[in-house]
Amino acid sequence: MVRVDLNTDSGESFGVYKLGLEAEVFKYVTSANIACGFHAGDPMVMAKTVELAAELGVGIGAHPSYPDLQGFGRRNMSLTPAEAKNFVIYQVGALKAFANAIGQPLQHVKGHGAIYNAAAKDVALARAIAEGVKAAAPEAILLALAGSEMVSAGRAVGLKVAQEVFADRAYNKDGTLVLRSQPGAMIHDPEIAIPRVVRMVTEGKVTAITGEEVEIQADSICVHGDNPEAIVFVARIREALAKAGVEVVPLREIV
Amino acid sequence: MVRVDLNTDSGESFGVYKLGLEAEVFKYVTSANIACGFHAGDPMVMAKTVELAAELGVGIGAHPSYPDLQGFGRRNMSLTPAEAKNFVIYQVGALKAFANAIGQPLQHVKGHGAIYNAAAKDVALARAIAEGVKAAAPEAILLALAGSEMVSAGRAVGLKVAQEVFADRAYNKDGTLVLRSQPGAMIHDPEIAIPRVVRMVTEGKVTAITGEEVEIQADSICVHGDNPEAIVFVARIREALAKAGVEVVPLREIV
Amino acid sequence: MVRVDLNTDSGESFGVYKLGLEAEVFKYVTSANIACGFHAGDPMVMAKTVELAAELGVGIGAHPSYPDLQGFGRRNMSLTPAEAKNFVIYQVGALKAFANAIGQPLQHVKGHGAIYNAAAKDVALARAIAEGVKAAAPEAILLALAGSEMVSAGRAVGLKVAQEVFADRAYNKDGTLVLRSQPGAMIHDPEIAIPRVVRMVTEGKVTAITGEEVEIQADSICVHGDNPEAIVFVARIREALAKAGVEVVPLREIV
Amino acid sequence: MVRVDLNTDSGESFGVYKLGLEAEVFKYVTSANIACGFHAGDPMVMAKTVELAAELGVGIGAHPSYPDLQGFGRRNMSLTPAEAKNFVIYQVGALKAFANAIGQPLQHVKGHGAIYNAAAKDVALARAIAEGVKAAAPEAILLALAGSEMVSAGRAVGLKVAQEVFADRAYNKDGTLVLRSQPGAMIHDPEIAIPRVVRMVTEGKVTAITGEEVEIQADSICVHGDNPEAIVFVARIREALAKAGVEVVPLREIV
Repeated sequence: MVRVDLNTDSGESFGVYKLGLEAEVFKYVTSANIACGFHAGDPMVMAKTVELAAELGVGIGAHPSYPDLQGFGRRNMSLTPAEAKNFVIYQVGALKAFANAIGQPLQHVKGHGAIYNAAAKDVALARAIAEGVKAAAPEAILLALAGSEMVSAGRAVGLKVAQEVFADRAYNKDGTLVLRSQPGAMIHDPEIAIPRVVRMVTEGKVTAITGEEVEIQADSICVHGDNPEAIVFVARIREALAKAGVEVVPLREIV
Repeated sequence: MVRVDLNTDSGESFGVYKLGLEAEVFKYVTSANIACGFHAGDPMVMAKTVELAAELGVGIGAHPSYPDLQGFGRRNMSLTPAEAKNFVIYQVGALKAFANAIGQPLQHVKGHGAIYNAAAKDVALARAIAEGVKAAAPEAILLALAGSEMVSAGRAVGLKVAQEVFADRAYNKDGTLVLRSQPGAMIHDPEIAIPRVVRMVTEGKVTAITGEEVEIQADSICVHGDNPEAIVFVARIREALAKAGVEVVPLREIV
Repeated sequence: MVRVDLNTDSGESFGVYKLGLEAEVFKYVTSANIACGFHAGDPMVMAKTVELAAELGVGIGAHPSYPDLQGFGRRNMSLTPAEAKNFVIYQVGALKAFANAIGQPLQHVKGHGAIYNAAAKDVALARAIAEGVKAAAPEAILLALAGSEMVSAGRAVGLKVAQEVFADRAYNKDGTLVLRSQPGAMIHDPEIAIPRVVRMVTEGKVTAITGEEVEIQADSICVHGDNPEAIVFVARIREALAKAGVEVVPLREIV
Repeated sequence: MVRVDLNTDSGESFGVYKLGLEAEVFKYVTSANIACGFHAGDPMVMAKTVELAAELGVGIGAHPSYPDLQGFGRRNMSLTPAEAKNFVIYQVGALKAFANAIGQPLQHVKGHGAIYNAAAKDVALARAIAEGVKAAAPEAILLALAGSEMVSAGRAVGLKVAQEVFADRAYNKDGTLVLRSQPGAMIHDPEIAIPRVVRMVTEGKVTAITGEEVEIQADSICVHGDNPEAIVFVARIREALAKAGVEVVPLREIV
């Protein structure tokens, strides 16, 4: 039976500031990428999010970022490979401690925002991140953009790697994401997005923005959980996957 | 044979800022309390300090603090017990990841500065810290002020606890430290300080500032390593301990 | 004619995080205490909030805090007087630059959260804050808890001082606020709170929680603007003040 | 008579961390670029550095940076123009408040590290910074890399602009600095560097790394003050300038 994971960014509240509807979206997703305090999250938020994920059977993942709370980790920033590696060790170590504290394993690690995008193309950065994950959580799965440099880097250091796809993003014919700044980059219509993502999972194919058929490995689908419309969208994806005979399970059961 | 550990605060550089003479003081101490980024230290400094400690056979410890980089963790700050616990989990988890990354265990945890002092007297805070250590590193030794609430709290949650004494501080007759703001609080003369600390180790006794004999458990002696005079002082303590037949060993061999 | 100012905390968003309904509450208040980046706010938020206040004719004030983004400035923290003074200079200078950049004066300064509460009672801290305001904005009005040490300190350094009262808080017979942790500290019923605050303005009196009549100087009323109910409450206060013949004007027209 | 300013980065200590020998270098320079808390410095350090500069007659300047304490403002970072402008307003406003608090004007503003380098070439960033300076301190001089985009941007918004040269850096034939990563970028030999910088001041010319003569406007020479050798170097530059009949004066007397 075909299986896929649904992952969502979470634990992105900070102090008095609330962001994300974890109590809702955790009913539908199977893996949670939890902020580690560098772009969002703080130790209180991390503890609560990890607990909620455990309660609802959602796989616990670390979501390391550039150190950029004010910019929510979305600003490009130049780090040396040694800095990138050590920043990952720090954040993954911290999040893993919260998981282990309640008897849970760290299931996976996925980069956040600008570092995720940069590492998809930058071989040295991807390698540094992979080494950081390997150092801090060799048992964890690295969750990376399908077909990206991050996938190769994770394999090169000996990590289990899962590939993720996006329901709401257009793809180039080389399998990379169309930049958000380009027209047509975002796919807002669920009637188009949902069958498209189901096809990625069941057939391993997606139609590029220029019309070509592109092969893609969809171990996990990235979904959002920060507004009520997003929750509805996730619920519909699950429904469509079920109808297509796809089982939705945590990442650890796939890779 | 009587044995004691020598511990020192370390890894307190930050970015371009250098603090501490680890390459020197690590020749003489057996345990290092390594800053975790909240009062000092950053992931680069943590990685380097952990490596150096491992190389020189110094026991690796986490040195969590209040979140107060500007005040070097010396400002009093009110945290809820839940905050204190989670801040400890975060910092200990991060430091432990650097140790584990190079195949080293986390030997111990010791609070830094204002939180160390507050937890010596504040039962709820001590309990919260102990729970944080237990959650993030149940195998680690809690290093705490001899005779303090932190010692009791560590035992209450089931941690191994080591008690530390200070060579350069005066004691009250109840075994607490004389506040730095009081006259006579600091003992600057090595001719007085050294025999005094040797006696704490060999006889388990120290003379209070008011003249009484106080019983004290000296599992570890706290020394400084941030200036050349401090290094000389540490070397002299080791010499005096050797002469008194005391073996200096890492904390893990004592508790 | 009796006149009073209505002030509200504002500019407390941070990065992607939104807090406060400035576009709504600025229709009703006459003075805005704008966060300066230490407990909330960032340069983007400061610029936007200052502009909105200017547009809607709301007096622009700086709202300095302890350096505590994670704790929203609500954690008690020990600072030296020199630190408190310099932290105030820094924050007031930064906010004033945004006001001056669009041709607006800085109308007032009001402490935030824990430092506001501490300075109401701590003479040395109050003095340090007053000196900081005097140094950075000698022309600005210091807005302080009615009858507090902050009022005396502001006058002692030669600042104009305005006294503020709270519609939703109970008072002790010495004019101090009943601590939030005490029963009866908060007055939630608008039917009680509104006539009570009108009386403070028109008669200069309030009934203490223990029944005594207390004299109080009400130059400004502190109101909230972070949720829809608060906005309704502010509108009702304005209505009640109008009915009582009280004119609501910015602080600079009162002191 | 030919005149030139000597400027140095300063106020780069932070909390317990000491950096810079202001008490020494301020004897030789005429303008100080003082860190504003984003890459270094804190309110205590800012207050002390401003006071020392005033005491020794050194022109007080703000030294704004990217928000990057851990990376000392040396990491490249992508900001929107609005962010860059507002970050400059914030920092310049804060530093200006410390100057004004002791009756001193803000003489100038100079970008720090990565933002300085980026703004030399990036027209939009240069414009945003210039607008920030104009907004926060329209009376201040913008100190910028000779011949750079920052110079044009400063003039375009109506600021007074001063151009700075480096004694220890090689130049390309288009007047830009040779990147530090290139061989020959740094000129370490004082016997070469000093006559070279004197010539820039007296003749307005420098020999490019490829041999061409390049015209350059030297209103100010950037020197270092963070180690004893640097102090000796600055003293020698002053001596050589005096011998060449050049008067060393604060920037405000030049532009």
